[in-house]
Amino acid sequence: MQTVIAGGTIVTAASTYEADVLINGGRIALLGEGLPTEGSEVVDAAGKFVFPGALDVHTHLDTPWGTQYTTVDDWRSGTVGAVCGGTTTLVDFALQTEGQALREAIDGWHAKAEGNAVIDYGFHAMIMDLTDSVQAEIPRVIQDEGIPSFKVFMAYKGVVQADDETLLHTMFTAAEHGGLTMVHAENGDATVVLQNRFAERGDLGVEFWPKSRPPELEAEAAHRAITLAGLAGAPLYIVHVSSAGAVAEISRARASGQAIYGETCPQYLVLDEDRYTQPDGAKWVMAPPLRHASHQEPLWRALASGNLQTVATDHSAWPLKDFKDQSLDDFRYMIQGVPGVEERLSTLYTYGVQAGRITFNRFVDVTSTGPAKLFGLYPQKGDIAVGSDADLVVWDAEVEWMLTKDKLHGNTDYCTFEGIPVRGRASHVFSRGRALVREGDYVGGKGGGRFLRRAAFATP
Amino acid sequence: MQTVIAGGTIVTAASTYEADVLINGGRIALLGEGLPTEGSEVVDAAGKFVFPGALDVHTHLDTPWGTQYTTVDDWRSGTVGAVCGGTTTLVDFALQTEGQALREAIDGWHAKAEGNAVIDYGFHAMIMDLTDSVQAEIPRVIQDEGIPSFKVFMAYKGVVQADDETLLHTMFTAAEHGGLTMVHAENGDATVVLQNRFAERGDLGVEFWPKSRPPELEAEAAHRAITLAGLAGAPLYIVHVSSAGAVAEISRARASGQAIYGETCPQYLVLDEDRYTQPDGAKWVMAPPLRHASHQEPLWRALASGNLQTVATDHSAWPLKDFKDQSLDDFRYMIQGVPGVEERLSTLYTYGVQAGRITFNRFVDVTSTGPAKLFGLYPQKGDIAVGSDADLVVWDAEVEWMLTKDKLHGNTDYCTFEGIPVRGRASHVFSRGRALVREGDYVGGKGGGRFLRRAAFATP
Amino acid sequence: MQTVIAGGTIVTAASTYEADVLINGGRIALLGEGLPTEGSEVVDAAGKFVFPGALDVHTHLDTPWGTQYTTVDDWRSGTVGAVCGGTTTLVDFALQTEGQALREAIDGWHAKAEGNAVIDYGFHAMIMDLTDSVQAEIPRVIQDEGIPSFKVFMAYKGVVQADDETLLHTMFTAAEHGGLTMVHAENGDATVVLQNRFAERGDLGVEFWPKSRPPELEAEAAHRAITLAGLAGAPLYIVHVSSAGAVAEISRARASGQAIYGETCPQYLVLDEDRYTQPDGAKWVMAPPLRHASHQEPLWRALASGNLQTVATDHSAWPLKDFKDQSLDDFRYMIQGVPGVEERLSTLYTYGVQAGRITFNRFVDVTSTGPAKLFGLYPQKGDIAVGSDADLVVWDAEVEWMLTKDKLHGNTDYCTFEGIPVRGRASHVFSRGRALVREGDYVGGKGGGRFLRRAAFATP
Amino acid sequence: MQTVIAGGTIVTAASTYEADVLINGGRIALLGEGLPTEGSEVVDAAGKFVFPGALDVHTHLDTPWGTQYTTVDDWRSGTVGAVCGGTTTLVDFALQTEGQALREAIDGWHAKAEGNAVIDYGFHAMIMDLTDSVQAEIPRVIQDEGIPSFKVFMAYKGVVQADDETLLHTMFTAAEHGGLTMVHAENGDATVVLQNRFAERGDLGVEFWPKSRPPELEAEAAHRAITLAGLAGAPLYIVHVSSAGAVAEISRARASGQAIYGETCPQYLVLDEDRYTQPDGAKWVMAPPLRHASHQEPLWRALASGNLQTVATDHSAWPLKDFKDQSLDDFRYMIQGVPGVEERLSTLYTYGVQAGRITFNRFVDVTSTGPAKLFGLYPQKGDIAVGSDADLVVWDAEVEWMLTKDKLHGNTDYCTFEGIPVRGRASHVFSRGRALVREGDYVGGKGGGRFLRRAAFATP
Repeated sequence: MQTVIAGGTIVTAASTYEADVLINGGRIALLGEGLPTEGSEVVDAAGKFVFPGALDVHTHLDTPWGTQYTTVDDWRSGTVGAVCGGTTTLVDFALQTEGQALREAIDGWHAKAEGNAVIDYGFHAMIMDLTDSVQAEIPRVIQDEGIPSFKVFMAYKGVVQADDETLLHTMFTAAEHGGLTMVHAENGDATVVLQNRFAERGDLGVEFWPKSRPPELEAEAAHRAITLAGLAGAPLYIVHVSSAGAVAEISRARASGQAIYGETCPQYLVLDEDRYTQPDGAKWVMAPPLRHASHQEPLWRALASGNLQTVATDHSAWPLKDFKDQSLDDFRYMIQGVPGVEERLSTLYTYGVQAGRITFNRFVDVTSTGPAKLFGLYPQKGDIAVGSDADLVVWDAEVEWMLTKDKLHGNTDYCTFEGIPVRGRASHVFSRGRALVREGDYVGGKGGGRFLRRAAFATP
Repeated sequence: MQTVIAGGTIVTAASTYEADVLINGGRIALLGEGLPTEGSEVVDAAGKFVFPGALDVHTHLDTPWGTQYTTVDDWRSGTVGAVCGGTTTLVDFALQTEGQALREAIDGWHAKAEGNAVIDYGFHAMIMDLTDSVQAEIPRVIQDEGIPSFKVFMAYKGVVQADDETLLHTMFTAAEHGGLTMVHAENGDATVVLQNRFAERGDLGVEFWPKSRPPELEAEAAHRAITLAGLAGAPLYIVHVSSAGAVAEISRARASGQAIYGETCPQYLVLDEDRYTQPDGAKWVMAPPLRHASHQEPLWRALASGNLQTVATDHSAWPLKDFKDQSLDDFRYMIQGVPGVEERLSTLYTYGVQAGRITFNRFVDVTSTGPAKLFGLYPQKGDIAVGSDADLVVWDAEVEWMLTKDKLHGNTDYCTFEGIPVRGRASHVFSRGRALVREGDYVGGKGGGRFLRRAAFATP
Repeated sequence: MQTVIAGGTIVTAASTYEADVLINGGRIALLGEGLPTEGSEVVDAAGKFVFPGALDVHTHLDTPWGTQYTTVDDWRSGTVGAVCGGTTTLVDFALQTEGQALREAIDGWHAKAEGNAVIDYGFHAMIMDLTDSVQAEIPRVIQDEGIPSFKVFMAYKGVVQADDETLLHTMFTAAEHGGLTMVHAENGDATVVLQNRFAERGDLGVEFWPKSRPPELEAEAAHRAITLAGLAGAPLYIVHVSSAGAVAEISRARASGQAIYGETCPQYLVLDEDRYTQPDGAKWVMAPPLRHASHQEPLWRALASGNLQTVATDHSAWPLKDFKDQSLDDFRYMIQGVPGVEERLSTLYTYGVQAGRITFNRFVDVTSTGPAKLFGLYPQKGDIAVGSDADLVVWDAEVEWMLTKDKLHGNTDYCTFEGIPVRGRASHVFSRGRALVREGDYVGGKGGGRFLRRAAFATP
Repeated sequence: MQTVIAGGTIVTAASTYEADVLINGGRIALLGEGLPTEGSEVVDAAGKFVFPGALDVHTHLDTPWGTQYTTVDDWRSGTVGAVCGGTTTLVDFALQTEGQALREAIDGWHAKAEGNAVIDYGFHAMIMDLTDSVQAEIPRVIQDEGIPSFKVFMAYKGVVQADDETLLHTMFTAAEHGGLTMVHAENGDATVVLQNRFAERGDLGVEFWPKSRPPELEAEAAHRAITLAGLAGAPLYIVHVSSAGAVAEISRARASGQAIYGETCPQYLVLDEDRYTQPDGAKWVMAPPLRHASHQEPLWRALASGNLQTVATDHSAWPLKDFKDQSLDDFRYMIQGVPGVEERLSTLYTYGVQAGRITFNRFVDVTSTGPAKLFGLYPQKGDIAVGSDADLVVWDAEVEWMLTKDKLHGNTDYCTFEGIPVRGRASHVFSRGRALVREGDYVGGKGGGRFLRRAAFATP
């Protein structure tokens, strides 16, 4: 059975043109004007845009926090939310616990995802401690497991923070075998000192959360990671960049020829730290925290100029009621992370493309083509090109709506972007030709997504 | 009559995939696997790459220097050379002489090109003095003539140099009407002082040419133009960027959100100032001059990172013998400019793509898609997309050859890149579906190119 | 007759200590504890500070504006005001008019000052057009006239603005003979365009004055002058630095090893552009204009860190009534310049030293020792050292008062700093041992100041 | 008994003038021309310079390395060497061992110095681990012990390295009580990784020493420490700055208004990493290592411009023979540190003042006045001012000699600067009026130096 998406305007990372798309065998077979539709289901895209399904390369589905808690979006609810928002590929973090082999962590992650994910997915490996045996696993993980990206935390001292020795060691080892090092860039040591000082003064309400993790600590960690990557000759990807200072460090490094890449998230682009002074401020406890609004334009500018390459979500779904709100009087014990896997494209389209901050092509690049190339999935994912997987979004740019909890498909009890007006929505979404969303509604079943073995890192 | 380019690998600014291309009515009609070839001429592109024809937005065909001399490549020889090198669109500079209306200058340029150009072309307007009447012409030139770009010289004091008042005035006026200001960024006043000092010492041999125009003067002018553009809220395009310092100014401005664009040329990427110490050093007299080799990597890096957006040629064809070599003992009187319209793609492919400095996608972007968007020609030009003009290059990446005068089609008596080994050559080139080059040979006639009315500037 | 200044705390550019000072023959003869006072006049400085008399290296006494107007402070009133404020040396600008020889301009300035000045003084030469004959004068002016500093205006197009050719030429010539080039750094060409645009809209009230000369134009000119000075290997002194951007350019250049020096003035340190919205906004019309208050801290920081080296006044005294206020509705015709020769030390002491922004030693350095060294007057001026001229200020740091017109000695009808509270005042001032101020009152006569032949520039 | 130093040229941090100095009661009593000499010893300084005795604020006398080794210069030999070189005050590091109270460490240091030191001295406290009890000691150490400076190592992982938590904590605590934090800025974690990589390849010869500690690691640590100091609002002093990158970080921070101070040492100014390829390369094993020669000019420039404030020695005396040379085949086990307490002034005078890189005043500032102010010893030390301690050097600037082991007074068996020609030598040195050096020879006895209680930090 073939499908023709007819009459739409195709938008890719570089091109904008009107054409029909013929899907056959789950792949894009033909692009042309007035394609014959006999024997094909026809999706009318007239007046709509057609772009490649988005990749979200930063999610935490079914992920434990310590031994007691687990994020409430599993691979079913999380991927259904994703695809309803126009995302057709996830790359999630397989967390290594202390002493655990990477292999074991990865196997665990496969068990969670398989049969549940409704869209295709891959994994990053998280490195806590680069022991000799873990190091020995890296080449195999890259080549045999199809997992060529490794995350190191510079924050969360005493929990998952790695020291610079582990970080630099990871960079050398990963780079030698085609791996990409990813970092959460915040100076976790300094956070401890600041938190202790707030604690001494009894300033532990959620309004002190952003003050305990000032943007200088993110810029510092970015600078340090960039320096170490330079020594290792290693490519580096900095996750969830939230501040002007970190952007400046990345821009400087890129101008000097280093292979440094940066990701930001919708929450840093459209929300700001004033949220923490609201009674429900606990909703937005995440790290890095929301920043002063003046950080937003530098982030947008970096997306526009190419100094940031991806927009992901860092989707970490915890309930607010009886959970995140339990520690309102002591931010040190608050569970961090916010949901957002479904709201990304509408937010970015509205406040980026519609607002004139980034072009529509750039929107496609930062949500789809860019991450596909950086994470070894191109050209299977990330493009509307003959032969690519038919992961496609038909985008209705005219609909105006409001982001609210009741319109989302995840398991949390709140929407990070509640009440924010947006324009544009995925009316149809295809994953390898399978129509999972029609007229905005999820019409797929359970499962159907496949694990993606990703290629080793190559400069995009 | 249709044409199918079959079996090639398509490369655009963002995509790389295998597909056939069906050309119909001079435009790209269909992209797909195994397209039917009945009733079509078939061009076998197996093992080859297919990319959009290049735009060269910086040429000086049939252009006077003072009242006595004219560049020796007219619109026939110049465009034949261009298309043999894979270039399918030129944008040439219509020079205003003192007191002349822009309209008159443009009419003169039409007369030169029409019936001679074998590929499509547009014009930039050059502003020497922004009198009230010239200013009054600008809106009309943009909207009615389809010429939305205006060049101002910051160099050549006493000849074509405009002062900062004219420059800023042009920026304001152009920006208000959708025009893009272009500058030649060198401080012409300082050049006079330095030349006089060399003259006082009798140091007038061609080896002093680069010393009389040091890179600091380019960075200074770039900084100044960027400052003025910031005040005017105007987009700015800096032609033939040759130095690390100018790149740094552009990068800084872009990171701060200004709409600043930069072009470089193959000569600055692969040649260096040591050429001026050769007996035939006069060949390379141009402005800005060739720089120390250390400037090359920063230029490449800026192409890779997106801080430079285009590679053009600044093709200015003068004979060496009995002409450029006449003033070997006094560089002040040397005719400036070098030919290069034909050598661009092979040079950039070899030393950029093959050498791993830029990706193949980026190669397409800086030679085709980028300039098409910046200069109001996208999506008619600059892409392999359904509906775009069938301006296509079939690229044989395997052939290894050497750039030499006898392989070129222009009218000068030397090759700027003589003896430089390259890899890759245009085996077939199509202009609106017309095959002008087959198996590397020019097979077109005279004329056939059309003037392109370009759209007003829009942020690409 | 000897004088002993007894019991004070001596403050120099580097030292702070308690000692008596014995003055003999107009020079400092002895420094020590409990000096014998027999045969000496004793000035009791107990509880007071004693520091070297200040130099004001930027004044415009008895100076014409065009052919019609002349500043109202002549060499008598101007120097009396100066000394009452703690200033014991002036360096004033001898203006070359078009076509005039420097010699002639200097002779004219001698005629104005001689017999009128009550304190010692020198001259800078102002270069409008560096003709061959003017150039030929430079070595002689430096060596024979004792005038080793030359000012070039980058602003005031059509009036005194020099182009970059003149500027660079001056730098080369001055540097070769031991001269220091000084610039007024604002891009005068751009000012013309901006003024014309305001005029077209009828926005010519004094509130548009600062908008017609934005800080970017100062930073640009500073950057350009610094680049040219680098090419010439010339030292450069930028007068009246008013903006954060210009400070940044100077700081960057100094860090890279260039001999760049910067001066600021009290008006830029304590006043801001809000003044232009006051009904008497005309009072503060000067160039560069007062800036947004956010520029003040960067100026203070640069004084503290050594990136700015001097604080002068740019004293240009015009009446407000029936003069500066005549063009309130068209800022283009307003006479520029403000008085301030008398208010400098109290302002700088209060808002610098008392406020903790600069040390007392640094206060002495930027008002006295620094300018003395930069302008070839050290150690005769600028220090409390054995053998130096006894130009001394006894400073009462306890007195709190308010700057108002009625307390000043100049001829204008207003005080630039009217109503600003200050702390500290010169209770006694000595010029070569002559007590000109006692208990805050001028007790000198007319004249008595001597012309100072200054030494060629040497890196301080 | 009084002393008159007659006929010399006095040079201080700001002043240069001819005067006699009368010493009485160990202090400077009188400065003047032709002072009466009756009843005084007269030291003829005609043709010589007289400047304040230098402070060396970075020495390691009688200091253990681990439990087995101790530097071979004790407080007698070390201070005799110092004073022969023109240094009249030392501030040495009192090392806290693990678990030790600061008080105990300080008491130990008093025991070493007392009765042995021939010149005055103070201590810094070294913080390894900021436990609660150590933290509680800090206010007392500052106020009661007169030790207001605390050093933290960012290098030497597993030995003395502190993590960022300790560093930031120290900064906060010290700043709150008037203390100055000092850091050794090198990323010790990264050093471990690089050393291991060299070890895996068997590249452990001394020539790999500098490669295992590249300058990027110093710049990174400086950047990090500066960021943390900014958060803590703390002043920061970076010891032994050796690289252009670290200078750039300091310069940038100072321009932005932070209270950041930097020290360099003669070895970084005049020696370079080529030394490590010599057969006796082990001589120069120190951390940071000697750098590529291109780092020297940026260091000199920073001394000239004020971006570096002090020149100290990091004197750490170990024998070469049978000691430093024992690990020639494995740099990881080499004892680090070089002697240099005696060579500083001649080296700095020759290659700084004589070479025109810094002024003579600046020489005095960076060796004497600057460190005296930064470390709470001004005006007792660091100046030639009435009332200051008569710590004076009579400097013969004419003598030309060569630095060699046999001319030095320390206990090591080599001279770090062996064979380097210099100009200028201390002919007489006074410590509180006691002549310890006459005509270049040590004429003092044992002991006589006093411990200096230093004042809390105040912005100099």
